[in-house]
Amino acid sequence: MIIQKSTQPRIGSFDPESYSFGDHFIDHMIVCEYQDGKWGEVKLMPYGPLSFSPANMAFNYGQACFEGMKAYKDKDGEVYLFRPEKNFERINKSAARLAMPEIPKEVFIDGLKALVDVDRAWIPYGEGKSLYIRPLIFATEEALKARVSHKYMFAIVASPAKSYYTAPVSVKISDYYSRAASGGVGFAKAAGNYAASFYPTKLANQEGYEQVIWTDDTTHENFEESGTMNVFVRIGDTIYTPKTSEKILDGVTRDSFINLAKRRGIEVVIGDVKVKDVVDAYRNETLKEVWGVGTAVVTSVFEAIGYKDEKLILPKLEFEDSYALTLQRDLVAIQTNQAEDPFGWRVKVERHVLEGA
Amino acid sequence: MIIQKSTQPRIGSFDPESYSFGDHFIDHMIVCEYQDGKWGEVKLMPYGPLSFSPANMAFNYGQACFEGMKAYKDKDGEVYLFRPEKNFERINKSAARLAMPEIPKEVFIDGLKALVDVDRAWIPYGEGKSLYIRPLIFATEEALKARVSHKYMFAIVASPAKSYYTAPVSVKISDYYSRAASGGVGFAKAAGNYAASFYPTKLANQEGYEQVIWTDDTTHENFEESGTMNVFVRIGDTIYTPKTSEKILDGVTRDSFINLAKRRGIEVVIGDVKVKDVVDAYRNETLKEVWGVGTAVVTSVFEAIGYKDEKLILPKLEFEDSYALTLQRDLVAIQTNQAEDPFGWRVKVERHVLEGA
Repeated sequence: MIIQKSTQPRIGSFDPESYSFGDHFIDHMIVCEYQDGKWGEVKLMPYGPLSFSPANMAFNYGQACFEGMKAYKDKDGEVYLFRPEKNFERINKSAARLAMPEIPKEVFIDGLKALVDVDRAWIPYGEGKSLYIRPLIFATEEALKARVSHKYMFAIVASPAKSYYTAPVSVKISDYYSRAASGGVGFAKAAGNYAASFYPTKLANQEGYEQVIWTDDTTHENFEESGTMNVFVRIGDTIYTPKTSEKILDGVTRDSFINLAKRRGIEVVIGDVKVKDVVDAYRNETLKEVWGVGTAVVTSVFEAIGYKDEKLILPKLEFEDSYALTLQRDLVAIQTNQAEDPFGWRVKVERHVLEGA
Repeated sequence: MIIQKSTQPRIGSFDPESYSFGDHFIDHMIVCEYQDGKWGEVKLMPYGPLSFSPANMAFNYGQACFEGMKAYKDKDGEVYLFRPEKNFERINKSAARLAMPEIPKEVFIDGLKALVDVDRAWIPYGEGKSLYIRPLIFATEEALKARVSHKYMFAIVASPAKSYYTAPVSVKISDYYSRAASGGVGFAKAAGNYAASFYPTKLANQEGYEQVIWTDDTTHENFEESGTMNVFVRIGDTIYTPKTSEKILDGVTRDSFINLAKRRGIEVVIGDVKVKDVVDAYRNETLKEVWGVGTAVVTSVFEAIGYKDEKLILPKLEFEDSYALTLQRDLVAIQTNQAEDPFGWRVKVERHVLEGA
C-alpha cells in the first residue's frame, strides 16, 4: 500500500456535535487504478479532487457503481464495520453486470480498514452517529467510444453521518414510472439507477410524498423497492418483503432485518408483495406497518401510502408494538457493540493497521 | 463568452490521413457551469482535464447525458453542422428525465459554433471523414447524498472521426437482457443506458455477434434498438422501423432516413416491428435488409441475425439494390454539401464567429 498522509488535516475544524451528512469528508481516501488488464497498488492519500477530462467515459457512458456502508464507534472508542464482506461481494456483482473489472478482496477490505483506522478520529460517537463509507468503481478512460472502458478507478471516500431522517414519511406507489427493466441492472448499485429515479421522485414530491414505492415495470402490481431502500410490509403479525431478483437490490440491511425478525420468532414471507394485497389489508385494517430499510437511514417508517388518487393513512404504533422500530433497535445495538453479535456481523477495525503495511 | 485560447495547440501533430476515432481531441473545449439555480458564462478553453473528486455526484448517481453530432467539411473548406437543433432539443429532453437543468439554446448553439469554428483546422476532409462532437451535461456536486445534484457542468468536446465500421455485422436478438424499462429512461441519451448495455453486448460478442438487437423487456417480441442505433427492417420493398417511445431514442439519423426514404417514394411503416414477422419474412424469403442507423457510423448493415440458436443469413445486395446504402449515400451527400438540401438540414458554420463575441 502506498501511504501519503495529509499534511493539512481538517479534523481539527470538524465539530462532531454539529455537522450535516454527506458534506464533510474525512482527511483521506483510498484510490486504486486499473489499466492494462490489472489493478495497481492501493494508495491511501489526502481526500481531494483528481484530474478527469469531460471526455472521461464514466461521464459519458455511466460505467460506475458503488457501495454504501458504515463504521461505528462504541463507548470505548473501538471501531466496527458491519458485514463488509457483503458489500465486497455486491460491488463485484454490480461491476460484473456493468462489464467492469472486479475488485480483489484485499484491495477492498484492506483499503477499507486502513482508511477507517487512519481517520478513526472522524467517526462520531453517539446515538445514530457513524461514519458513512462510499466505495465506488468508475471508468476513467478518455475516449468517445460507446464501449467498455479500459481504465477504471476504485476509490473509497467517507463522511461522518447521522440518521438523517427519522420522522415518518409518505410514499407514492408508482403506477407509471419504474426503476428497473426485466433483464436490466436493477439489482446492481449502478450509478445510472439513481439518476433514473430522481425525476419520478420529484413528481412524487410535488404531490406531497417523500419517496416512490417502485413497482414492476410491466404491470405495476408488485412492490419492488421504496426510494433507494428495500421495502417491508407487515400484515397482521407477518412481515412480507419482495424476493431479491435481477430487478431488486440484495440489501445488507434487508438481509439483517430478515434474520433479526426470525430470531424474534416473527414470521417472514419472502416473495411477491402485491399492491392489491397491501391495499386489501389496508381496507380490512390488517395492514399494520410498511417501512423501508437501507444502510444510510437504517429504517424509514411510512405514515401514509399514496395509491392512485387515494392516500392510505397507516396506523401510528407505539415503539414496542412496531416491528420496524424494534428490529431497527436490535440491528443498531449489534452494529454499535451494545449487544451480543450471535451472527458474527461485526468486524473490529484494529488500531495501527498501517504499521508495517 | 470567456475565451481562453490554447497556448500549446496540438493541431500541428495531427495527421488527418492517419488517426483513430475518439482518441484524439481537438485543441479546445466548451465548458459552462451551473450553480445557484442558473447557468454561468460559456467558456471556450484548451481541451484537458479538470478537477473532480471521487465523491462527485456524476460518478456516484449517474446524472449525466450527452449528444452525438458531427461537423463536415466540404471541398471548399466550408464547415457544416447537421440539424443541430435536434440535438439541442434532445439533450434537454434527456436532462429533464434525469432531473437535470435544461441548457439554454444560446449556450448550446453558440458554444458549438464557436468551438467548431476555432478548431476548424481539425476537421478532416474526405469520404466518411468528419468531426465527431460530444456535448454533455453531468452532475458536479461533491456530496454523498442520493438526490439531484445542485451543480452541473455542460461541456462540448470533439474528436476527428471516420466511419469507423462499415463492414456488415452480425447481430443477436435479445431474448433475455434488455436496455429499457417501461416508465424508464430508454428514450434519453442517459449515460447509464450505455453502461447497462455493455455486458449483454459482451455475451453476444462471445457468441460471434457484434451487437445486440434490443427487444422489449416484457415479452422480447418487439424490436426496439440495435446496439446504440435505431433499427430498420426491409421486407419486400417496404421499410419498417419501431415507433419512438419512452423506451426508444428519437434518433436524428433515424428521422433523416425516414424523410429520405419517403422522398424516394419508398413506403415506410412506423410501428411495432415484431421479431416473429421478421423471422417469418426470413423464412419466406421476403426479408431483404436489416440495418442500424446512428450519427457515429451512419449505417451499419447486418449480414446475419441471431435468433435463439439459429443464425439467419441475410441476402447480400448490390449497392444499387440496397435501401440502406442508397439512403446512406443520400444522407451523406446532404451532410457534406455534395447535394441540394431541400430539407434545410445543413447549418453552415461561419468563420471568425468569436470576433466581437
